[in-house]
Amino acid sequence: MIETPYLLFLGDAPDQLAAKVAQGIRDWRPEYALGQFRMPGCRADMKLPDMTLAEARAAGCKTLVVGVANRGGVISESWIKVLVEALAEGFDLASGLHNLLRDEPVLVEAAARFGCNLYDVRVPSVEYPIANGRRRSGKRMLAVGTDCSVGKMYTALAMDKEMRARGMKSTFRATGQTGILITGDGVPLDAVIADFMAGSIEWLTPNNAEDHWDLIEGQGSLFHVSYSGVTLALIHGGQPDALVLCHEPTRPHMRGLPDYQLPTLEALRDAALLMARVANPDVKVVGISINTQHMGDEEARAYLAKVESEMGLPTVDPFRHGAGRLVDALAAI
Amino acid sequence: MIETPYLLFLGDAPDQLAAKVAQGIRDWRPEYALGQFRMPGCRADMKLPDMTLAEARAAGCKTLVVGVANRGGVISESWIKVLVEALAEGFDLASGLHNLLRDEPVLVEAAARFGCNLYDVRVPSVEYPIANGRRRSGKRMLAVGTDCSVGKMYTALAMDKEMRARGMKSTFRATGQTGILITGDGVPLDAVIADFMAGSIEWLTPNNAEDHWDLIEGQGSLFHVSYSGVTLALIHGGQPDALVLCHEPTRPHMRGLPDYQLPTLEALRDAALLMARVANPDVKVVGISINTQHMGDEEARAYLAKVESEMGLPTVDPFRHGAGRLVDALAAI
Repeated sequence: MIETPYLLFLGDAPDQLAAKVAQGIRDWRPEYALGQFRMPGCRADMKLPDMTLAEARAAGCKTLVVGVANRGGVISESWIKVLVEALAEGFDLASGLHNLLRDEPVLVEAAARFGCNLYDVRVPSVEYPIANGRRRSGKRMLAVGTDCSVGKMYTALAMDKEMRARGMKSTFRATGQTGILITGDGVPLDAVIADFMAGSIEWLTPNNAEDHWDLIEGQGSLFHVSYSGVTLALIHGGQPDALVLCHEPTRPHMRGLPDYQLPTLEALRDAALLMARVANPDVKVVGISINTQHMGDEEARAYLAKVESEMGLPTVDPFRHGAGRLVDALAAI
Repeated sequence: MIETPYLLFLGDAPDQLAAKVAQGIRDWRPEYALGQFRMPGCRADMKLPDMTLAEARAAGCKTLVVGVANRGGVISESWIKVLVEALAEGFDLASGLHNLLRDEPVLVEAAARFGCNLYDVRVPSVEYPIANGRRRSGKRMLAVGTDCSVGKMYTALAMDKEMRARGMKSTFRATGQTGILITGDGVPLDAVIADFMAGSIEWLTPNNAEDHWDLIEGQGSLFHVSYSGVTLALIHGGQPDALVLCHEPTRPHMRGLPDYQLPTLEALRDAALLMARVANPDVKVVGISINTQHMGDEEARAYLAKVESEMGLPTVDPFRHGAGRLVDALAAI
């Protein structure tokens, strides 16, 4: 578990989009984000106090999180210099970069010398068990999508935020790199060995209080041929009580697969229920989350109303309009 | 490559199923299997001569093959003792276990000292791509099962044998350690990183002559919650033209999952077709393969006739009665 709170390292981010990991932390766990560290030329801004490393330590920051994508897949010399200084100040480092902190000898050496940790959240740090399929106490929601990158993580995070605000018991369970950096914990499922995928999700969502909800971040899609196996492992390892269907209506084809059309929401509902009932016969689809970011206000409201009428399920864009109706549906189970 | 012939190490296998690697070699490459080595408590038997290590060396065995699975994976101290003695006798060791021979320092040291080789066939030796979903030339059959270990590998091997006998173009495509030990080639799918599972199967079954059949070994089951993700990656990476449903009718529950009943053949057919059509809309279920090893002759024939009548598909035990009718069905596509 990565120690909080964080100092967000924005490096020399060329724009706001390059710092989307930092933005996710800022949006969903503002209490973890005490400050930001920007280098000359940085064009991203989280509207957080700019801090030196020493100031951030004095403010209580435990971990420097690399909140920015690096250009060209290289951790530059100028970054390395800052990261070594951070280790010398006593920071742990956490990163979701493709190139690993642990593959940089100077960082490994400095971490050892100063007694600090390097967290590369792209690679699993746990020996996961093989799934045993036993029913666990507590309740679980899984976001499933018609495609990759349609808003499954945001849906689960928005529901978690709403449930906390209502005083309900919930935990967002991260299954991807960004989610892990946002919350400090989780399973990097796409990097897990095939035989242990479902077991890693059982491990992530253990027995809990009967009125506690795990809100599990989805991955891939049953209909995305590159990653569908990852999705099914989530469905069977998570043994969800509730599914939320996620969709982005303006996409012309499956992400990265020009020859493949997106399935309908009806097809997703039927396939996801068929598979989810294997692990939990009582599973229900409780609502629909639509990513309307490419639609105007009128268009978005009309589309949501149309889907809600066709599917007979609460249909919202939780990022745009809040997750209240999805949480109402969970609470009614 | 791995030197033959083999001494089959059965360890302290709790039952015959646990030794399915040894059984596969015994059945499909009997000329490689000169003897078996069993430890106290072993409940598996290949009906081969029980040999000491020295006797097996004297009989000409070159390699001790670990022919028994260890669920979850620990190489016990009692196994290690035998394996070190085998190296001292001059055996190479070959294994498909999750935990690697090469990760046991005492084996590495002994192999170096005695000039012998350690073969871990489970470790992927290729950097597989992410699946792209593009249609490939040639035809593909995938065996899918109601459960793990119901005869998917045997079905594909028996069909391959029959097709070769008829002069048809076919290749058995191994996706597990037994198949790889038998044929010397394949993808150790359960050890592949999640994101690359489907891509590894595309790599294994590339473009081919239009009248060539890849006969793909299945893994797991869409209904086995521990491994279903592996199965779906096979279905989407293999983009099969033909499916053969595999079933073992006497099993009381899903293997290793006492709380889970086996699905019906109808449920398997419907779920497998639903998922397979995502990658290949023309996919057909062409036949049914029943593992009747726990049934008498009369009982087996009656059961096959009943299933054939209910399902309307050629239904055989290819190991007991040959794979001719399944191959007829493929040839008719």
